[in-house]
Amino acid sequence: MTEAVSRPTLEAVAARAGVSRATVSRVVNGGDGVRESLAERVRQAVADLGYVPNQAARSLVTRRHDAVAVVIAEPESRVFADPFFALQLRGISKELTAHDNQLVLLLTEGRDDHARVARYLAGGHVDGALVFSLHLDDPLPGLIRAAAVPTVFGGRPHGSAPGGAGVAYVDCDNRGGARTAVRHLVDLGRRRVAHITGALDQTSAVDRLDGYRDVMADVLGGADPGLVVQSDFTPAGGERAMRELLDRCPDVDGVFAANDLTALGALRVLRESGRRVPQDVAVIGFDDMVPVAEQTDPPLTTVRQDIEEMGRLMARLLLSGLPGGRGRGRGTARTPAPDARAAPDGGVILPTTLVRRATA
Amino acid sequence: MTEAVSRPTLEAVAARAGVSRATVSRVVNGGDGVRESLAERVRQAVADLGYVPNQAARSLVTRRHDAVAVVIAEPESRVFADPFFALQLRGISKELTAHDNQLVLLLTEGRDDHARVARYLAGGHVDGALVFSLHLDDPLPGLIRAAAVPTVFGGRPHGSAPGGAGVAYVDCDNRGGARTAVRHLVDLGRRRVAHITGALDQTSAVDRLDGYRDVMADVLGGADPGLVVQSDFTPAGGERAMRELLDRCPDVDGVFAANDLTALGALRVLRESGRRVPQDVAVIGFDDMVPVAEQTDPPLTTVRQDIEEMGRLMARLLLSGLPGGRGRGRGTARTPAPDARAAPDGGVILPTTLVRRATA
Repeated sequence: MTEAVSRPTLEAVAARAGVSRATVSRVVNGGDGVRESLAERVRQAVADLGYVPNQAARSLVTRRHDAVAVVIAEPESRVFADPFFALQLRGISKELTAHDNQLVLLLTEGRDDHARVARYLAGGHVDGALVFSLHLDDPLPGLIRAAAVPTVFGGRPHGSAPGGAGVAYVDCDNRGGARTAVRHLVDLGRRRVAHITGALDQTSAVDRLDGYRDVMADVLGGADPGLVVQSDFTPAGGERAMRELLDRCPDVDGVFAANDLTALGALRVLRESGRRVPQDVAVIGFDDMVPVAEQTDPPLTTVRQDIEEMGRLMARLLLSGLPGGRGRGRGTARTPAPDARAAPDGGVILPTTLVRRATA
Repeated sequence: MTEAVSRPTLEAVAARAGVSRATVSRVVNGGDGVRESLAERVRQAVADLGYVPNQAARSLVTRRHDAVAVVIAEPESRVFADPFFALQLRGISKELTAHDNQLVLLLTEGRDDHARVARYLAGGHVDGALVFSLHLDDPLPGLIRAAAVPTVFGGRPHGSAPGGAGVAYVDCDNRGGARTAVRHLVDLGRRRVAHITGALDQTSAVDRLDGYRDVMADVLGGADPGLVVQSDFTPAGGERAMRELLDRCPDVDGVFAANDLTALGALRVLRESGRRVPQDVAVIGFDDMVPVAEQTDPPLTTVRQDIEEMGRLMARLLLSGLPGGRGRGRGTARTPAPDARAAPDGGVILPTTLVRRATA
């Protein structure tokens, strides 16, 4: 079709259906208040004429921007250094693109910029927001609540607990995954099992620590506090923690690291110190971040969560909750993925699986 | 100051300065049409009272969003895989944050999504756009022109040539940098100097090829066409090209690779094939992308461009050209960086330098 061929207009649809322009507009934009018999006539006329609504006019009526913000509450430099975010963004990007929604990534230099991000969200530039990586004292959730933008969080937000307020979020089963990892180490005969934590101002790190403690209490009657070292989800942090651990508990024979990057750092230090993995010390990570987990030396046994699918699911949940039910519609929002389960506080929890490679 | 302490109002400023509310508003928002003596009285009253303009009201008057879009005309997956973009975004993010502007990164899955990006730009959500990585037949520049949003391009856009239309862009001296690299190889006594090109639908690749040809014509009376292999700026592409080159011209003794990632692939193949670098084949890259260039084996001699500074400069140019002259103001926009020079077509060109490491 060339530019010269005129496209069917709203007026043409109205004339064919024998209704007013306003009625056509309401039906085309999914609005209510039109008798079903009339609406059916309009839809038939639209189909007969091959009418395509004008996008700009449509958004004036619907107040939709067909755009979704992604906010990662980390400095720009970390967003690009940690492959975790790239994987989540991949899932989000695919899902939003499939629904012709624009992904609007709002980057910051740090927490001081979160008020500006909230201002942008409140400014009517997007239909909703997907928000990641919240730290305990971050003002962002409060700012976002004030901005009154539909939001789905990646990871359980602080203050959201069983029986809580019903904030929409997607997370993996951090506590269950941690239990599986630690139980596997115990099943291998390890008794001096240590945990290098993630950043404990994030719920994922807290939940993984709780999972570790569950098993240690169950099986060994509680963990030696010296076996828990706080860290920050980074390879450098993993190195520091592993050095401290070897110093404090030289008889350590198993390590559950809070994520794969932490395990990467721990493995480096174990190699330097002449410990064999897994013979002397067995190691398990969390995430199954490929290629990181495959390329460690030896290849890393880890708890797999489907990071890309989490991103996709967040986007799907957000779209399906927006006016007009983009995405798959409200009906499917409650069972958004085959394996997902609903948390008591309204979140959606994805399962984890243990991926056995060479370190445990 | 607690919430209970009332902030000075616009009315209070007007009363103190003895002018109308409208006059205060015009002065505060940088508008014209106020006599300088009056404006000075208003500014004094603002200072005396510690008046802070309300941001939302301000943007209603100024029609500013204090937000700048960044568009990278590559699929989302490449944006996160190529450290080049991370470096440019770092510079942009720092500069925009310094001026309290929000960085709005618009991601896409591919070229089919560029119309949607242009729609977002035209939708009044940002004050301007920074646009990267344009390919020859990409509709984006035309779409952006139609969207009528102030834009600065990263890299010389196609169709912009000496004496051209005066599109705003920032680039490095691709041709000059390539000449320096090839001349260095010739000065080392190399006579069979090959070039592995970048993606030739990008001006940076074309300009680097031209620089290679300049020197070959000058010094050696023209290049053997067999010594030029087309590639695509990726490590895998560099591997393929180097294999083809060794096959076609086994006597090759120097390689100028279009970027560091290409050189990385070429070095791998040279090592596999038993050639010593630089003794048998000297290699030079382009970008000086740290840590890539430092971690090749052996460490890479390359042409350095300041990628982060390019990003920063783009943001500065855009802000200084917006109404109200954010950034450093129009006056400095023409000499935005100490070493930059203006191109005849209106672009700003940053210099390059040869960084000698071990490969040449």
